[in-house]
Amino acid sequence: MAAKDAKITRSSVQLKTPKGTRDWFSSDLLLRDHILQTASNIFKRHGGTPLDTPAFELKAILAEKYGEDARLMYDLADQGGELCSLRFDLTVPFARWLAMNNVSQIKRYQIAKVYRRDQPAIARGRLREFYQCDFDVAGLYDAMIADAEVLRVVVDVFEALEMEITIKVNHRRILDGLFEVAGVSDEKIRAVSSAVDKLDKMAWDDVRKEMVDEKGISGEVVDRVGEYVRRRGDMSEMMQFLKSEPELCGNESVKAGIKDMDLLVSYLEVYDVVDKVSFDLSLARGLDYYTGLIFEVINQSPISNSVPAPASSESQVGSIAAGGRYDNLVGMYTKNAIPCVGISFGVDRIFTILNARRVEKMVPKVDAYIIALSGKDVNGLLLERMIVARELWNAGISAEFAAKVKPRQDKQSKDSKKSRLSITLAPDEWADGLIRLKDSRDDDKLQDKKDQGQLISRENLIEEVKRLLNI
Amino acid sequence: MAAKDAKITRSSVQLKTPKGTRDWFSSDLLLRDHILQTASNIFKRHGGTPLDTPAFELKAILAEKYGEDARLMYDLADQGGELCSLRFDLTVPFARWLAMNNVSQIKRYQIAKVYRRDQPAIARGRLREFYQCDFDVAGLYDAMIADAEVLRVVVDVFEALEMEITIKVNHRRILDGLFEVAGVSDEKIRAVSSAVDKLDKMAWDDVRKEMVDEKGISGEVVDRVGEYVRRRGDMSEMMQFLKSEPELCGNESVKAGIKDMDLLVSYLEVYDVVDKVSFDLSLARGLDYYTGLIFEVINQSPISNSVPAPASSESQVGSIAAGGRYDNLVGMYTKNAIPCVGISFGVDRIFTILNARRVEKMVPKVDAYIIALSGKDVNGLLLERMIVARELWNAGISAEFAAKVKPRQDKQSKDSKKSRLSITLAPDEWADGLIRLKDSRDDDKLQDKKDQGQLISRENLIEEVKRLLNI
Repeated sequence: MAAKDAKITRSSVQLKTPKGTRDWFSSDLLLRDHILQTASNIFKRHGGTPLDTPAFELKAILAEKYGEDARLMYDLADQGGELCSLRFDLTVPFARWLAMNNVSQIKRYQIAKVYRRDQPAIARGRLREFYQCDFDVAGLYDAMIADAEVLRVVVDVFEALEMEITIKVNHRRILDGLFEVAGVSDEKIRAVSSAVDKLDKMAWDDVRKEMVDEKGISGEVVDRVGEYVRRRGDMSEMMQFLKSEPELCGNESVKAGIKDMDLLVSYLEVYDVVDKVSFDLSLARGLDYYTGLIFEVINQSPISNSVPAPASSESQVGSIAAGGRYDNLVGMYTKNAIPCVGISFGVDRIFTILNARRVEKMVPKVDAYIIALSGKDVNGLLLERMIVARELWNAGISAEFAAKVKPRQDKQSKDSKKSRLSITLAPDEWADGLIRLKDSRDDDKLQDKKDQGQLISRENLIEEVKRLLNI
Repeated sequence: MAAKDAKITRSSVQLKTPKGTRDWFSSDLLLRDHILQTASNIFKRHGGTPLDTPAFELKAILAEKYGEDARLMYDLADQGGELCSLRFDLTVPFARWLAMNNVSQIKRYQIAKVYRRDQPAIARGRLREFYQCDFDVAGLYDAMIADAEVLRVVVDVFEALEMEITIKVNHRRILDGLFEVAGVSDEKIRAVSSAVDKLDKMAWDDVRKEMVDEKGISGEVVDRVGEYVRRRGDMSEMMQFLKSEPELCGNESVKAGIKDMDLLVSYLEVYDVVDKVSFDLSLARGLDYYTGLIFEVINQSPISNSVPAPASSESQVGSIAAGGRYDNLVGMYTKNAIPCVGISFGVDRIFTILNARRVEKMVPKVDAYIIALSGKDVNGLLLERMIVARELWNAGISAEFAAKVKPRQDKQSKDSKKSRLSITLAPDEWADGLIRLKDSRDDDKLQDKKDQGQLISRENLIEEVKRLLNI
């Protein structure tokens, strides 16, 4: 009694996945794969090459790249040998790979899980183990050409997923210059920047309070920052605003940013995506490795005025993709600094939105289910069902049957519902070289629900099946 | 000077992946994906449903499932909260998932990386992070029906990969009975079993010595074991041998095993795969959770006699897939023990073999590369190249161009070689609504290597491109 033995040694451990992780199965997994497949098809359309790196990296390579967030990194236990941590994103492994292999020019994409010991919020798609799906362009190119293509990739991916989006953009140099003009001292820029970045979730008054009370910035400086960073709008009106402020466009850093953004606009126009873009001066992003264009994608139709659109339930999941230009990261590993610009898609958040929206689940179906019609006195035609399965498999058609010598009629009938076609064998018909074939889509049309379908010659089975499956 | 700043803070850490791990890129990754895609297509053909589980599990769930091998498990550091380890295989997570979700019947497949702190041998495809690709049938079915289908799946996968194989099979009950008949005491069975399993790599004299000297089995018992376990051959001759030995087939355990194997033979005959199978009484497999059929796949044409075939260089990688029936594992987690049989493909070993064999690398290619023909006095037609790229992308055609305002002629020429088609823009022709289109396969045919291809109207571009690409 194998089962009984096992019972005795049964462990009492609670059956669960670790905190913030989940299993993926069947229709959920098919939807997730659909998202990943859609993205990688678009990446290939833009000349992307795939890369896969280990799930963990030397801790020393990851160290000091993530600032405060580093505390969220999963370390491997010290079991002798190298100290390692699970990857935190796909960008640092990409930079490590570029430096290690002396690659100076590449469009690479990587789709893989990353790990963060963050507070999970599974309903909103925030997990500790989650997929990232990155497309980055590395290499020394002329300004904003690769940046514009990355934004076009973003639009292509979400168009293929049939999702409405707005790409919020900003420029590190404009943000830096703007803080300078407002009178923020160099050592306070990071603090102000991270406070300002919260403007998509918090009211200005609260952000203001945080800067004054917690970060010790003078009210006067904060108010001047506020005048700028609360502005957002479409590219042309924002470019017009920046150019109309003598103090701003007189600043060297802002001037460099405006030059980039002018180029970007002209390229985005050619790429037909400029209307998806909203220029948002509060967008700062947490990581300070961004050196130029910064962007973040939200699941909302483009907003063309300066009033934020009311938060829909869909937008509650936060940004669904984000990225920017990071020209210095690779230089931390090698003397050949390689400028990069890239985008990371939040697969689990995209999944959450698409999953809430779908009416019909993507259920995996086999092409054909093979049923034995058998009374009490006959056998279950097991070898005969195997022969039919073999013929279908040989022809590349997916097929199943009950793994019983004498299967029950009701069970076979129920299981056959999950297939496109059902093939029924009856002892006397089999002896005459005949089988029955039924298309499950005809079920509604058939008068007699017990109809086993059309009687055909065994020799014609594959041909008939292919015809019905349209292959 | 961003790059200069970065140089100063450049870290001095050695750039490498952790021991026993590697990056996968471009043609290697495409070959690996081809293996995984091929396998998952076959799994679907047999009604498989995909499952994905987290890369780490609660340590308590993995504990005590791997015996001695447990020391090779990667633990996560204790950073507060649950204690976890990286998964060691995909079987235990599958058992955990079955128990947790009360699933009593499923064909599931999972393709994911697993982690073992083993001594790596990268050239032979043995890594610390490696892919497993598992297909398992769980559920209470009639004897050997699912087992036979799993072996058919094995043959289907390797046939699709165009690899010659032999499936070595044995049966736990036959092995147990045989040890009993030979006089091995219960507490020595595990030791004898693991020694016997080495017969594919070691000579009998050495295995004998290990059993007598290290494991303290009497020479007489060992010799009787040796008489049995050195036998292998095709199914029919081995079944004949077992049935001709009264001592063996009088044993209850052996008798049960023979009954299973008789059924298996009849099913494998219907499935047309019996000639790929070699019955090898020395096959024991390390893990002792196997309860019935055990099998291991080697990259070698079927061997029909009892002399082992000479080891080819390909067979040096060891078994390329392995599995068996494990009816008690799920019962360790839940009171509903669920019988299972499954196969795990060694993706990295299969990769090593196919990679050594391939002559032509699978290089990723874009469909079209857009070149600007420009002299000193004209611009590089950047916006025009962008327009053409946009049109191609809109039509789902992959396209690239140099991300430079005025790209160099030689660089464009070189990069265009990596695409199927090249599209050349010249200022005067563009003004007339004309562009040049060239199929790279025509390069050899063309008299003039500098020929830029056929002049066509811009309006016909997509149509012409589709015609040449056959889409």
